[in-house]
Amino acid sequence: MGGNVEILLTEGAIVTQDEDRRIIKNQDVFIKDGKIELIGKNLRENADLKINCRGKVIIPGLINLHTHSPMTLLRGYADDMLLENWLKEKIWPIESNLKAKDVYYGALLACIEMVKSGTTSFLDMYFFMDEVAKACKEVGIRGFLSPGILEFGTPEVKDVQDQMKMSKEFIDKWRGDELITPVLGPHSIYACSKDTLLEIKHISEEKDALINIHVSETRKEVVDSEKKFGMRPVEYLDGIGFLCDRVIAAHCVWLTRREVSLMAKKDVKVAHNPISNMKLASGGVMPLPEMLEDGVTVGLGTDGAASNNNLDMFEEMKVAAILHKAHRWDPRVANAQEVFDMATLKGALALGRTDLGSIEVGKTADLVILNEKSVRLRPLHNVISHLVYSAQGSDVWSTIVNGRLTVFNGRVLGVDEEEVLLKVEERITRLLDNSS
Amino acid sequence: MGGNVEILLTEGAIVTQDEDRRIIKNQDVFIKDGKIELIGKNLRENADLKINCRGKVIIPGLINLHTHSPMTLLRGYADDMLLENWLKEKIWPIESNLKAKDVYYGALLACIEMVKSGTTSFLDMYFFMDEVAKACKEVGIRGFLSPGILEFGTPEVKDVQDQMKMSKEFIDKWRGDELITPVLGPHSIYACSKDTLLEIKHISEEKDALINIHVSETRKEVVDSEKKFGMRPVEYLDGIGFLCDRVIAAHCVWLTRREVSLMAKKDVKVAHNPISNMKLASGGVMPLPEMLEDGVTVGLGTDGAASNNNLDMFEEMKVAAILHKAHRWDPRVANAQEVFDMATLKGALALGRTDLGSIEVGKTADLVILNEKSVRLRPLHNVISHLVYSAQGSDVWSTIVNGRLTVFNGRVLGVDEEEVLLKVEERITRLLDNSS
Repeated sequence: MGGNVEILLTEGAIVTQDEDRRIIKNQDVFIKDGKIELIGKNLRENADLKINCRGKVIIPGLINLHTHSPMTLLRGYADDMLLENWLKEKIWPIESNLKAKDVYYGALLACIEMVKSGTTSFLDMYFFMDEVAKACKEVGIRGFLSPGILEFGTPEVKDVQDQMKMSKEFIDKWRGDELITPVLGPHSIYACSKDTLLEIKHISEEKDALINIHVSETRKEVVDSEKKFGMRPVEYLDGIGFLCDRVIAAHCVWLTRREVSLMAKKDVKVAHNPISNMKLASGGVMPLPEMLEDGVTVGLGTDGAASNNNLDMFEEMKVAAILHKAHRWDPRVANAQEVFDMATLKGALALGRTDLGSIEVGKTADLVILNEKSVRLRPLHNVISHLVYSAQGSDVWSTIVNGRLTVFNGRVLGVDEEEVLLKVEERITRLLDNSS
Repeated sequence: MGGNVEILLTEGAIVTQDEDRRIIKNQDVFIKDGKIELIGKNLRENADLKINCRGKVIIPGLINLHTHSPMTLLRGYADDMLLENWLKEKIWPIESNLKAKDVYYGALLACIEMVKSGTTSFLDMYFFMDEVAKACKEVGIRGFLSPGILEFGTPEVKDVQDQMKMSKEFIDKWRGDELITPVLGPHSIYACSKDTLLEIKHISEEKDALINIHVSETRKEVVDSEKKFGMRPVEYLDGIGFLCDRVIAAHCVWLTRREVSLMAKKDVKVAHNPISNMKLASGGVMPLPEMLEDGVTVGLGTDGAASNNNLDMFEEMKVAAILHKAHRWDPRVANAQEVFDMATLKGALALGRTDLGSIEVGKTADLVILNEKSVRLRPLHNVISHLVYSAQGSDVWSTIVNGRLTVFNGRVLGVDEEEVLLKVEERITRLLDNSS
C-alpha cells in the first residue's frame, strides 16, 4: 500500500469526543504518519491530499467491539428460529464445512461493509484468523482478532491444546502490526474448561494480550452454570481468578446487580450487542444503567451478520439507545452522548487504545467524514442526536484509518467490491452444496 | 408533471407479495397509465422508458401508516426527555409559531426522505395540510392526509367547529386526486370531546372518509381515561359508537386482551410505531401476537421525525421484528414475512386500498427497485430476510409512484433537493428565533 501520505481535511465540523465533548466548526485537520498532527483554522500545511470537508461532519471512527466478521456468509441464511435449532440445524452444519478461503471472502465482505459504514476498528472472534487479518490489511481497517478457542474443536484445529499453541503463534506473528492486534479468544465458560480458561489467562499475562469471551448471553448459560458450578457465570469466572482488566466480555445480558459490581471491581470491559440479543430473543436486557453507575467500560458491538443481520454501528447505536429507554420506561436512560461514547471512546478504552476514539492532536488518525447532503441529517439541531437517532452507515462519505484514505465518496479504495461480491456468491454456492 | 409515460422494467427479481408470496426472477414489468399492465419474461412492449433491472430486486412500495411529516423540522431538536417536558418545553412552543410555509418545507423534506427510502404512501396528521398535499404532488408520493382536529385549537385554526368545517372542505377539495386522499384526523380521546368524535364519525360516514386517531399510546392516557370515563380508551371509543372499519388507530400500546378482541370485532386498523414508542419510553409493548391471532390488520409507521428520528421504513421493520422477539423471549414471533406484510399489504388494507401493497397485474404501479450492489444485501440467501433485517432506506435505487418515476438512481426527480435543504435551514432559524 506504499508509505503514508499527508492528508489535509479542510473546513469540517469536528465532533472531537475530547474530554469536554466539544464540537468545533470550520476546522482543518492535518494528518501525518498516521497521526493527527494539527487541528485548527486555515492550516497552511502542504499535504499530498487535500479533502474539502466544508459543511461536512467529521467524527472519530466507530469501534465495533464484538463481531464474527466471516459470518456475513450466513447473513439471512436462517432467521426467526429458536436459538438451539438455529445453531444445530443451520449454523453449525455450514460452519463445519468452512474452508480458509470461505473465511477470507466472508471477512472481506464484512470489512468492506464496516469501513463503508464508518467502522474503523473491530474486535473479532472466528477461525482461520490469518485470513481475516489478510482481509483487514487489504481493505484497510483495524482488526483486533481472536482465534476462537473451543474445547470441542474448531473447523480449523481439533485439539484445544493445539488451538492455544496456534493462538500463541498468532500473537507472535501479528504483534506490532500497524492494523492487526492479536487477541485471545476463549469462546465461553461452556466451550472452555476451567484449565483451558486459566491457561489462556496465563498466556494473556505472558504476552500482554487482551481476552475476548462470551459471558451470560442466555438464560440457559446461567442455569447451566448454576447447575455445574453452583455459581453464576461471572461469579464462576471471578472464583477461578479469570477476571481482570484485559478481559472483554460480550453480551452480559443476564447479570445480577452483584455481578455488575464484580465486573466493575475487576475492571472487566463489556461489549453490548443489543440487536443480536433482541433478534435471538436472548431474553432480558443487559443492565446498562447499573454498569454505567458502577463505572464499567461498556462498548458496542453488532455481533455476527447471522444474528443482526448487518454490521452497521449507527443502527446499533440507535437500537441501544431506544432499547434501554423502553426497558426502563424512562427516555432519559442511554442518552445520545452516552451511546455515542460507547461506540467511540469506550470501545477504544476497552481495547486498551487511548490513542483511538477521539479527534485530538497526537491521536491516531482513524476518522469518518459524513455526507452533509443526507436529508436524514437535516435540519442540524444537534449533531450527536443525528449520529445516534437518524444517521445510517450509508451517510458515511469517506473513512480514514491509520492516516490512510480507505473509503472516498462511498467507494472502498483498496479492493474491487464487485469482484468480492461475485466470489462470496461462489463460496456460498459451494458451501450450501456440501452441507445439503 | 405531464401525462403518464409507459415504463418497462426488465429482468428484475420481483417480490410480488401476492397471495402465495411468490418471488419470481428475471421478470419484466410493463407499466401503463399508472397500472401494472403486464408481468412476464421478455416482454416486447414498446415503452417510453426502459429500465434495466437485471439482478435488482423489485418490491411493492412501502406504506408508512403513521407519521407527522412536517415534524422533520424538529428532528433532533429535543431527545432523551420525559414525554411531558419534551412536549411542554420543546415541541409545543415551537409548533405554536408554525406558519404554512414552515409546514410546506418540513413536508417537502419528509417526502424526499420517504420516497428515497422506498416509501410510496404515507398516512399523515398535522396542520396546514394543503401545504403537505402540495409537497406530495411536487415530490410524487402518495399522501393520505388528515388535518389534526384538537379541541384546544391548532396553529392553523382555533375553534374545533371551524376545524371540522375545514376538514370537510379539505375532503371535498382533494377527493379524487390521483395522489392525495383526504382523511379525518381527530387527534385522540384526550384532545377531542365525545361530541367532536361523534361528529367526525358522522362526517366519515357522509363522506366515506377514513379516520386517523391516536389510541392508548401511553399509560397516562389509559389512567386518565379510566378516571374520566371509568373505561379504558378502546372501551370508551367502542362505548360511544366510534369504532368501525374506517378507523386507523395509531400506537395501541396499552391494550388489554379484551380490547384487542374489540378492535378485531369492529375491524379497526392499527398503525404500529415501535421506534417512537421505544424512544419516548411509552412503556409496554403493543400486543402484536394477540392482534395477529385475532386477525387485526396491523400496519407499520415511523411516527414523526421528532420522536424517531428518521422516516426509514426498513429500520422500522427491523425494530418491529426484533422488539417483539425480545419482548416475548421467542425469536419466532414477528417473523420477517409477517413484518414485511405489515409494511406493504397490511398497510394497503388499512387504507382501504387493495390496489396497493403487491406487484400484480392490474394493480397500481407503486414500486421500489433496490440496488443489488449493496454489500448489506449479500449473499442472497433470502430476500425477505434481507429486506427486514439488513436493508436500509439507502439501498433503494429507484422508486415509481402511480406509474411515474419519482426517484432514479438515488435522486429525486421532481424537486431540487439542495434548494429544499437550504430552505429548511432558513425556516428553522426563523422558528428558533421566534420561540426563544
